[in-house]
Amino acid sequence: MEQPPAWLPDGWTRDDASEEQIARERGVYGPFVDSLRELVDLAIRTEVDLPVVEEAHGQLRAINDRLRERLLDGPYGVRIGPNGGRNWGNAIMGLRNAIAPPLDIQTDGESRSWCDFELGAAYEGPPTLVHGGVTAFVLDHVFGAAAGADRRPRMTGTLTMRYLRGTPLGKLHAEAHVDRVEGWKSFVVGHLADDDGPTVEAEGIFILPRWARGDQRPKY
Amino acid sequence: MEQPPAWLPDGWTRDDASEEQIARERGVYGPFVDSLRELVDLAIRTEVDLPVVEEAHGQLRAINDRLRERLLDGPYGVRIGPNGGRNWGNAIMGLRNAIAPPLDIQTDGESRSWCDFELGAAYEGPPTLVHGGVTAFVLDHVFGAAAGADRRPRMTGTLTMRYLRGTPLGKLHAEAHVDRVEGWKSFVVGHLADDDGPTVEAEGIFILPRWARGDQRPKY
Repeated sequence: MEQPPAWLPDGWTRDDASEEQIARERGVYGPFVDSLRELVDLAIRTEVDLPVVEEAHGQLRAINDRLRERLLDGPYGVRIGPNGGRNWGNAIMGLRNAIAPPLDIQTDGESRSWCDFELGAAYEGPPTLVHGGVTAFVLDHVFGAAAGADRRPRMTGTLTMRYLRGTPLGKLHAEAHVDRVEGWKSFVVGHLADDDGPTVEAEGIFILPRWARGDQRPKY
Repeated sequence: MEQPPAWLPDGWTRDDASEEQIARERGVYGPFVDSLRELVDLAIRTEVDLPVVEEAHGQLRAINDRLRERLLDGPYGVRIGPNGGRNWGNAIMGLRNAIAPPLDIQTDGESRSWCDFELGAAYEGPPTLVHGGVTAFVLDHVFGAAAGADRRPRMTGTLTMRYLRGTPLGKLHAEAHVDRVEGWKSFVVGHLADDDGPTVEAEGIFILPRWARGDQRPKY
């Protein structure tokens, strides 16, 4: 079991939760936020009468009132402890973030990452297609995961997307790999694809942040 | 009052709703989805006891059951009618989409766009910072709005982001303008900024889609 480093950068907090506590939270928040993802979809696609939506709104307000009673001061950040790291608030990976599909990115532990996922109505841009900005959002993270497959964090330096055609909503695949490394820079290439092949190709430079270059670097 | 064109591309539907009906829907869905955005934030930041979250989950399920009773078959698409266009499902602009901040993008009607907005905990990537992919998501749309400021739709061809530094969560500003036009291609440049100046610079090529090049092109 790895110990968290003595020094942590801004927004990283020490996580003293036990394995059991983390499992209990996962068991409650996971299904809750899955239902919330469904509600995000339903709010776009429902065709029930307006008074039903108004009634639902009243019920939603009551839920908000309860959950607002005790709150973190700021965003979730990253919690790091003897039982692993938690980035449950992350916009694209977060277990507790209903904006996140969430992506479940696999890596080879060295320089490759890949991810199979599905995007529904909430990610639409041009009609029937994934928003071009959402494809950039996904690729940024999958690319960062390839650059950070060695378990050292990387930040996006540059990212260039080439849109080959529209990306249909539905089942998608993204993959990336580190093409070469120069100093603190990792050059990453990859693409997003549907069943018919790539829809967006991309390349990017990812950078090992200054605070992670020493021996005290947090792994995650 | 403009009439919608006779032919519409895939996912665009004719909108026969009256001005009053659209205002009524806006009055119900606008506040409902604002509350839903708050719940997305609360699901990340609440620290109430787990049984309270479980109880909220039961209430949420009941809301979903009601809204699921009558549903659109697919995503929302774009509705276009004598009383304007509606892209209420759009991932970054949509009135009915809780993923969307939503952006309220201004244009000069020719070649410039800009937008002031705020991003909270739900858009976090690295602790305390906006997810790099979210900055790409926002810039893609603001850039598309500059390219399409003349009210003809443009699709992203390429987009290159240069990350100057981390973008803090909070109040932000994005702007873009068309640098030059070559045939169907608009070359757009711009940036995202906080109070201390630009955090991400970008440039992109946006393309007038084939179906929008003739006289039958839908405006929006």
